[in-house]
Parts: sequence; structure tokens; C-alpha cells
Amino acid sequence: MSATGGAAERLTALRAAMAAAGVDGMIVPRADEHQSEYLPASAERVAWLTGFTGSAGTAVVLPAAAAVFTDGRYSLQIQDQVDGALYERVNTADKTPADWIGENLQTGTRFGADPWLHTDRQLERLRTTVEKAGGEFRLLDGNPLDEIWSDRPEPPAEPMKPHPTAYAGRSSEEKRTQIGAVLAEAGVDALLVTSAESIAWLLNIRGDDVRNTPLCLCFAVLAADGSTELFVDPRKLGDEVRTHLGNAVTIRGRDELGAALDGIAAAGKTLRIDPESAPAWPMERVRRAGGKLDSEADPIIAAKAVKNDVELIGVRAAHFRDGLAYARFLSWFSARAHQGGLDEMTLVERLHGFRAEHEMFRGPSFDTISGAGPNGAIVHYRVTEESNRNLNPGEIYLVDSGAQYLDGTTDITRTLSTGIVGEEEQRCFTLVLKGMIALSEAVFPSGTTGGQLDVLARRHLWAAGLDYDHGTGHGVGAYLGVHEGPQRISKSGGGAELKPGMIISNEPGYYRAGAFGIRIENLVVVEERDVAGADRPMFGFETLTLAPIDRALIDLSLLERHEIAWLDAYHARVRDTLGPELDAETAAWLVDATAPLAGKEPAQG
Amino acid sequence: MSATGGAAERLTALRAAMAAAGVDGMIVPRADEHQSEYLPASAERVAWLTGFTGSAGTAVVLPAAAAVFTDGRYSLQIQDQVDGALYERVNTADKTPADWIGENLQTGTRFGADPWLHTDRQLERLRTTVEKAGGEFRLLDGNPLDEIWSDRPEPPAEPMKPHPTAYAGRSSEEKRTQIGAVLAEAGVDALLVTSAESIAWLLNIRGDDVRNTPLCLCFAVLAADGSTELFVDPRKLGDEVRTHLGNAVTIRGRDELGAALDGIAAAGKTLRIDPESAPAWPMERVRRAGGKLDSEADPIIAAKAVKNDVELIGVRAAHFRDGLAYARFLSWFSARAHQGGLDEMTLVERLHGFRAEHEMFRGPSFDTISGAGPNGAIVHYRVTEESNRNLNPGEIYLVDSGAQYLDGTTDITRTLSTGIVGEEEQRCFTLVLKGMIALSEAVFPSGTTGGQLDVLARRHLWAAGLDYDHGTGHGVGAYLGVHEGPQRISKSGGGAELKPGMIISNEPGYYRAGAFGIRIENLVVVEERDVAGADRPMFGFETLTLAPIDRALIDLSLLERHEIAWLDAYHARVRDTLGPELDAETAAWLVDATAPLAGKEPAQG
Repeated sequence: MSATGGAAERLTALRAAMAAAGVDGMIVPRADEHQSEYLPASAERVAWLTGFTGSAGTAVVLPAAAAVFTDGRYSLQIQDQVDGALYERVNTADKTPADWIGENLQTGTRFGADPWLHTDRQLERLRTTVEKAGGEFRLLDGNPLDEIWSDRPEPPAEPMKPHPTAYAGRSSEEKRTQIGAVLAEAGVDALLVTSAESIAWLLNIRGDDVRNTPLCLCFAVLAADGSTELFVDPRKLGDEVRTHLGNAVTIRGRDELGAALDGIAAAGKTLRIDPESAPAWPMERVRRAGGKLDSEADPIIAAKAVKNDVELIGVRAAHFRDGLAYARFLSWFSARAHQGGLDEMTLVERLHGFRAEHEMFRGPSFDTISGAGPNGAIVHYRVTEESNRNLNPGEIYLVDSGAQYLDGTTDITRTLSTGIVGEEEQRCFTLVLKGMIALSEAVFPSGTTGGQLDVLARRHLWAAGLDYDHGTGHGVGAYLGVHEGPQRISKSGGGAELKPGMIISNEPGYYRAGAFGIRIENLVVVEERDVAGADRPMFGFETLTLAPIDRALIDLSLLERHEIAWLDAYHARVRDTLGPELDAETAAWLVDATAPLAGKEPAQG
Repeated sequence: MSATGGAAERLTALRAAMAAAGVDGMIVPRADEHQSEYLPASAERVAWLTGFTGSAGTAVVLPAAAAVFTDGRYSLQIQDQVDGALYERVNTADKTPADWIGENLQTGTRFGADPWLHTDRQLERLRTTVEKAGGEFRLLDGNPLDEIWSDRPEPPAEPMKPHPTAYAGRSSEEKRTQIGAVLAEAGVDALLVTSAESIAWLLNIRGDDVRNTPLCLCFAVLAADGSTELFVDPRKLGDEVRTHLGNAVTIRGRDELGAALDGIAAAGKTLRIDPESAPAWPMERVRRAGGKLDSEADPIIAAKAVKNDVELIGVRAAHFRDGLAYARFLSWFSARAHQGGLDEMTLVERLHGFRAEHEMFRGPSFDTISGAGPNGAIVHYRVTEESNRNLNPGEIYLVDSGAQYLDGTTDITRTLSTGIVGEEEQRCFTLVLKGMIALSEAVFPSGTTGGQLDVLARRHLWAAGLDYDHGTGHGVGAYLGVHEGPQRISKSGGGAELKPGMIISNEPGYYRAGAFGIRIENLVVVEERDVAGADRPMFGFETLTLAPIDRALIDLSLLERHEIAWLDAYHARVRDTLGPELDAETAAWLVDATAPLAGKEPAQG
């Protein structure tokens, strides 16, 4: 409860700092200058100010009111962490920050936002909201919160490391030439890159500035001729990486970016800035300097999504390695789960332990979701000391985890039984599995987006009146972000065209609140597919993930013959690929776990 | 060839009229003031100027160059009808009008467009194109082409007729109150309606101003209180329709619209104009008058798409009636097709003849597509005296047609054999049929769009490396347009959420150029679906169209059991519904044509 006192003082101090900065109100998003998925501690402003540590949080502070916003998955946590006497605690499904500002902002209020922490579009919407409510919108020059954050952690300064061409497949010079040509073709002189993932791909570098993703936080300006200025804390750069970057990459201080943008503007050059991934600050800077702005997509995003053959070799090796660790985990689990006594945290640690034995393992690719029984129905569940639950016999267990290896990124979900399986769990699991198989078997023409395929993963659930409220697939990087675009498989449609070399997850699910959760996830890569008699180029998916699917959870009477054949073939591949490299006990377990199902189905009418 | 001389004189005269209007270049789209699908003769400017009569055509005239643009389906026709010495003849797939303007416009050229014939967005894009090419863009005040079009047909002045509540289900007053409430809720004072289909629905009126759709071309302004001003040629209004419209609808001349818009602007009222369906002229008028514009969707479009129970009773009756005529046509066809000697035009006339016998028939709902053999592969084929082709034994025949009845609109495609069927035709027909059945059987949660379902119609073709390059489904009106929004089923995704009462077509196809074309089309209506154990409200499709599917074209070995069951059940319904009302000969044919297939499939591995 001591944090509450702190939070009150902080809020008071923030209001004073805001006044000094010339505003009466402001918004504090959970975001950094790179629109990163995982933030460095130095950007955890919402947590410091309000106490709320959820991954989705926004604070809004007005002279006589304040609120913290999050979504349904954090509704308990926000009650626990945020003092209701200081902040209204709001579920964004009930009321968005814009709604709340519209209701609470007094006429004449000067309302500010830090243009480093919002995209241009976000600020435009905010401006409209504030002005509609009779307020005056101001872009902040410096963040008042940072002024009063006395114990603010230093921004991370972990070493930048070369990502060898042996894993990247193509040299940074080749990539810079390729992207530079895209810029030239579009009549653009240079590209500002603010996404740390784009820079990692472009320069073949990795880092350790945030959790779960091997990023080095910095900015870059790539000219159409391929030459690059890198704006980075020089403490991150050792000799090896400086040699790796070479002469065509000029190192500058992070605080020199503004002057560089002014210089580009003054030279009359056109600068592309991606309005979706970049903060508003550099766009505003170029506008104020009278420069030419090209607000179009960062072309690195599309290029990075298509993995080359060398990257795919690495990714397959990473999945093979991950499959070995995962098989050991599953075998270990199956020997113990029927006895009860396993809890969610133990399972997370055990799975991590198997993976961590390999020298190429660099850490998890996201925080593991480990949900026993009803906790499996909480889609973004993260186990804590308080929530940690025993897996009781008869319950099912959902575990969604992934790893970063030097040569690839993995992401796998399995739903596991303790041996005793309820009919309803079995029925729902089988419907989810049918969707996962349907996507695995999909054949589609070039030009198809993931949005077009989404229904294949859902239709069997739909026929039973069931569905799931999350996407079916997200792009995955190669030793980079476990969530990347531009491709996705989603009921909301859209996403980029699926192209050979794109990695995407295939993860339908079903969740019964208070009872159980099911998800089955493999990563797949888009590949060209020879179809006899085809009129046009066709694509399909190669499955990367290698791990058995719990046969005890399958109601065979619900599977069609081709679905059983797919599963048996997949299991045979898992067994034949992993078996020779496993210890005898795990190998023996794997033979059982992957035994064919064909011929075992009940007779059908 | 005499038209060529005329075209040269017309082009010269147009250039003179343009000069008098203060422009050096202009665009002539094939469009009218209502963005109608079918144009009155008085709006066929492209045809008059250039000789080109295709349904997609645009002319652009510059001082020293001119071009006519159309798409691939008219590539032969444009060569035939348009003089290449006067106009460059351009396929829009190779070059859009914007591309061509960019290449051909000289710096300083004043380029005009008639704001009655383009949407606001179209004009904005055109302005950008012209200004990028160094020209000056001007909105025309009056159309120079109309100045010189001495023999221009009078705008249509066919009588407006009441559409009885017995068919419409709800009175115009109810509808005006409903839409008025939508406006009030959005804080809008009035709605300008320029779409003749929206006005027909809102006022429960129909007309005869254009082909194939029972429209009366006029404009309306609906106030949030439900009162309406109708801007219409008074010659269209007899006593009956004046009584029908009642006191809440004020009749004004069509030329009074501008003054009315000025009045709304002067009163400080907010006027909604749909930027997608309205021409730019009224938007520009309101802007110039300093009025408040709300550029959002015409809410009538969404309301009209959801048919009420009375409308659905009418639509089902129309399909029953159409099914009787269609059965007679199919029976007649099957007795003759194997002998050869049937040609495409004869078949169009014969089908029309069966339909026209009914007193409620009001004409075709679009121009029939009647394609024998290779002509079936031309997706938008329309038979002419020159193209008319005999249907030879062994070929297949594609016929896509529809009817307007007082109580509903139909649209059906069948692909028919002459009795002898090639293996490849049979395989492809069966793959198309599997897609059509999959959509028919779809069950989906509320909130689903047609775009999400599209793949169900394509996936069996895709698995064989095949596809089709058109949408899978379009909305259909109730004695209104055969193509209406906002719902659709398309690989490009999008479209509005499917709601119970929406009618949509289900029409996958396959086309092999130079060989054959296949399409199978039923109309379906979205209905609520009780699914045992469902978590959420589920919907499905009720099939409206009643006509046998040619069993000779089916390769039974490619159908799954549930697909055969669907087809047998559909055929049984067609037989049981239509049979009792048919003449003995047709009824006997129908019994054969709908005989069950279950049990006849070859043994499967």
C-alpha cells in the first residue's frame, strides 16, 4: 500500500510539471520512441506514475480528474495496482481515452501530448477530441513526467552485435542497396527508420535493449544510394560491430537526429517516414523545417517479412532444436500430469529449462502463457505468484511459448491433457484441430491475403456455434520479433499478400470462460506449390513447428479421412525428424505420442 | 463507316465548345447524375461522342490528343466502334485515364470535368493528376458536350408509380421516420439522396426511366423529422402517386435543387451527402454556400439491404414464379439441345418468353448472358447478331439471367450440357458446384462479412490450381437493383456485415478461355440459425432460387457425402415446390432432373 502514497505525490508533482510546461492536462501512453512491443524500463511511464504494470495501459491527467485505461484482461490487476481515489480505472471496451477526455475536459484546458510517444494519426485524433471538447491541443516539447521521474532508469545501452550473414543470408550492403532502389523508384531521397526491428534487419545487427526481442534501440536514415546514418548511443558500439557496419554507415549521436532532419529538409530532399510505425516527432520536425515529407510505408517491413533461403535454413534448424526441447518437456509432462501436483509456474520453468540447455538459445520470444483449467480460457493470461494454479487431473492445460535462437524465432501452443478427458473438451479440441489442419492444407493462388483464409480455421467451430476472439495468425521474424507484419490471418480481413518465404502462425483456439481454454499453434512458411493442371501460380504452407498434438484430446469420429491422414503424416515427420536425436526415454515416449490414428476411427454411417 | 465522319465533326465541335467554356481539355465519363448502373439515353455521352457503346467507357479530350478507355471485355468492340485516327483506344488494364492524362497533358492546360458526373473523390484524384502534370483543374459549369449534342434525347419522363405497402412491407412514413432518426442520432439535420434506388426504397415508389431497374430518376432531401422534398420532373407525377406521396413530401422542380441546398447552408443546418454515391456537384454547392457538410454514408443503403418479412414473402413468390418459367425453359432446352441447332439469341428469347407470360413480370433485371461453348468463357459476354453462336452437341452453355417482378428481383445462372459431357468440363463443373454448396451450407456468427466467406466458394478450385476473376456474391434488391450494396462476397474482402434479411448471390465460376465457361448462381437470404450449444448468435443462408442443377455435369466421385445430401435435398425442394404447378410434360422432366444422386456415387477408397 506504500505505493499509493507515492502515486499521489507523483500525480501532484506531474500536475506541477505540466503547469511549468504550459499545459493543464496530458496523456501518458505506454509507448517508446520506436513503437516497440516490449519497452525498456526507462519508458515505463504509466507504471511509474500510476503503479499499473499491465502491457496495455494509458493514463490521462486533467486538472481535477485522472484516469488509467486498460482492457478486459487487466480488469482485476488495475483494481489491485491503481488507487481509485487518484485515478478512475476504466475498461477501454466501456470507454476509450477519447470518450473520457470528451466528457471530462473543461473548455479552455490546454492539453498536451509527447510527440515522441504517439504516431501522427494518433495525435490528429487526439487533437480533434480535445478541440471538440473546447480545449486547446499542444505538442509537448520534452515530457513533463520525465522531469519529475527522479529515479528513472537509464535508457538501455546494451552492446549492439553483428548478425552474421551465415544467418541473415544477405549482407547489409545488399539490403541497403535493395531498399535504396525502392526509395529511388518512388522518387524519395531518404528513409527515416525508427523501428528497431527494421534497423536490425537492414544493418544485420541485433541487441539486448528490451525483453524477448533482440533489439538495439536506435534510429537510422537510409539514403537512396544505400548510405546510412545511424543515430545511436555510442556506448553500444564495440569494435566488432563498428567493423561490421563499415564505412557506408556513419555513426552519429542519438540527439543529432533533429539536426539531421533539418539538414535533409534544408537540402530540399524528400524524406519518407512511415506514419504507422514512426512517432509524430520527426514528421513534425520535417514539417516545421519546411521539408518534403513522403508519408508512406517503411519498405523494410515488406522486405523483412519474406525470408531468404539462408534464413529459412536457420529457422528450420531453430524449430528442430526447439522441437527436441519441447519433446523432452512433453514427455516429462506426460509422465507426471496424471498424478496432479504440477503448477503453472513450475511448468513455465521446466519448459524454459529444457530450451535453455542449448547454447544457441537466447531467451523466450515472449512471456509464456501457462494456463491450467479455467486459466487457459484467459487469452492473454500470464501466471503470477498469486494466480499460480495446480493442474488437477481431468483438467486441460494450455501453454503458449516461444524461443529466440541465434538462427530463428519459435512460437508454439499446445493444449495438453492429464490423461482423463471430458467429452466437451474433446469435442472442442477436435473442432479447433480441424481448423488448424484446414489452414495447414490450404492451397491458394498468388495474391491471396491471410484475411481471405481465416474462415478455414473457424468454419468447423462456427458450424457448432462456437468461435474465438483473436486473430488466427501473425507474422514471425527470423531471430527478431515474434509478432511482425505486414502479413496476418484475421477475421477482420486485410493483411498483406502471402508470399513465399513469409512465416506466419496458424493458431485457432476456443475458450470457455471459467472452464477451459484450447489453442493449437504451429508456425508455417508460405511456399510455392506445384499443382498438376494449375492455371496460375499456387502457394501452400510448409509447417515449421515439430511437436506432437495430444491424441487423447481428439474425438476421432469428428475427423474426416484426409484430416486423419494429415495428422498421421505430420506426426510421422515429427517422429522421424526428432527421434534420432532424442534420449531413449523421450524417443520411446515420442513413438507412442505419434502413433498413427488411421484405422482407429469408429465406423461411420 | 458514316459514324466516323460524324465522330470527327463531334470531336471538333466539342473542342470549340470546351474553348468557349474556358477549358482546353475535359473528361467524358459514362455516368449520370445518380451514379446509376443503367443510364438513360440522354446520358450516353461517350457513345454519342465516340461511337463506343460498351458499358464501361471513358473519353478524354485534349487539344491535340484524345482517347477512349475501356476494359478487356470490350477490346474488340472498341476497335470496331471507335476511329483510331481520332482516339487512342486504351485498355484500362494497360493504362488508366490518369496515367494517360499524366503522359499527354501539356503544362498550362486548363482541364475540366463536369461535377455532376463524378464523385467528390474521383474529382480530387483527377485534380491531383492534372496538377501533377502541370495543368490547371477546373470544375465545369454546364457540360460543353451537352451544348453541341443537338439530337440529344430528352431525359426520361416515365411515370412514377407507387410501390404498394403490400410489397414494401413498411410505409414510406415509417421509413422516413426511421432514417430521420438515424440522422438525428448522428447530429445531422438533413440528408441529400441522389441515388434513385435509395429514393425508390424511401418513398415506396418505382419508375421506368432506365432499362432493367424500375427507377424514377430524381433527387430528394430528407429532413431529420422525416419530411421530404422531392426534386423531380413534374410530368412524371400522376394523381395516384401524388396521393401516395402525401403531404409530408413536397414536390419541387429538379432545377430547384441548387437553391434548396443554398437554403440549407444559409440556415446553418448540417447536410449529409454520401461521398460514394453522390456526384460532387451538390457537395461543391454546399461548400461554396458555406454550409455544413457531413460526408458519411447514405443510411438508406444499409436499411434497404435488410429486407423485411413482407418483402421476403414477395421475393420468395417471385422466385417461385421465376422457377416455374425457368423449369419450362430447362425442359424445353433439354428436349432440343442434343440435336444441335439452338443458338444463343434464340435461347435468350425463349427464356424471356417463358418469363414474360406472367402478368407480374416487368422485364429482365439485367441483359442476359447467353454463352455457348467458348463464348461462355467471356465473363461479361452479351450476344449480338454478329457473335451469335450455335450450341454444338458436346459443348456446354452458360446462361445468366434475371427478372423484375412487382414483388421481387431474380438472378440465376445455370450451366447446361447437351447430354454429351467432356471429362474436363465435368471436373471443373463439380469443383464449382462444391464451392456453391459450401457457401450454401455456411454457418457463421453475427458480425461476419461476405469477404470472410469468399474462400469457401473458391477453395476446391484452388486445390486444383484454378480460380475465377470475379466476385462471388452481390446484394440484390426487392423489385429494385439486381446489384446493390453494402454486402458482397468478394476475394478483395470487405463488404458490410451480413444481417438476417439481406439477399446476396452465390455464384462461383470457372472459365477456360477459348473452351468453356461455368457458373452456378443461386440467390440466398441471410437467416438466423439455431445451433445447439451455440455460444453466440449464428446465421446461415436460405436459398431462394428454385431450379435444378444439371446432374449430367457432375462427377459424383468428387463430391463428399454431405455435398450429395445437400444437392439431393435442394432438388427435392425444387421438385416438391414447383412440381404441382407445372404442366405434365415439364413436371415429368423435373422428376427426372431432380432424381436423387445418393447411392449412385462410385465406391470410394
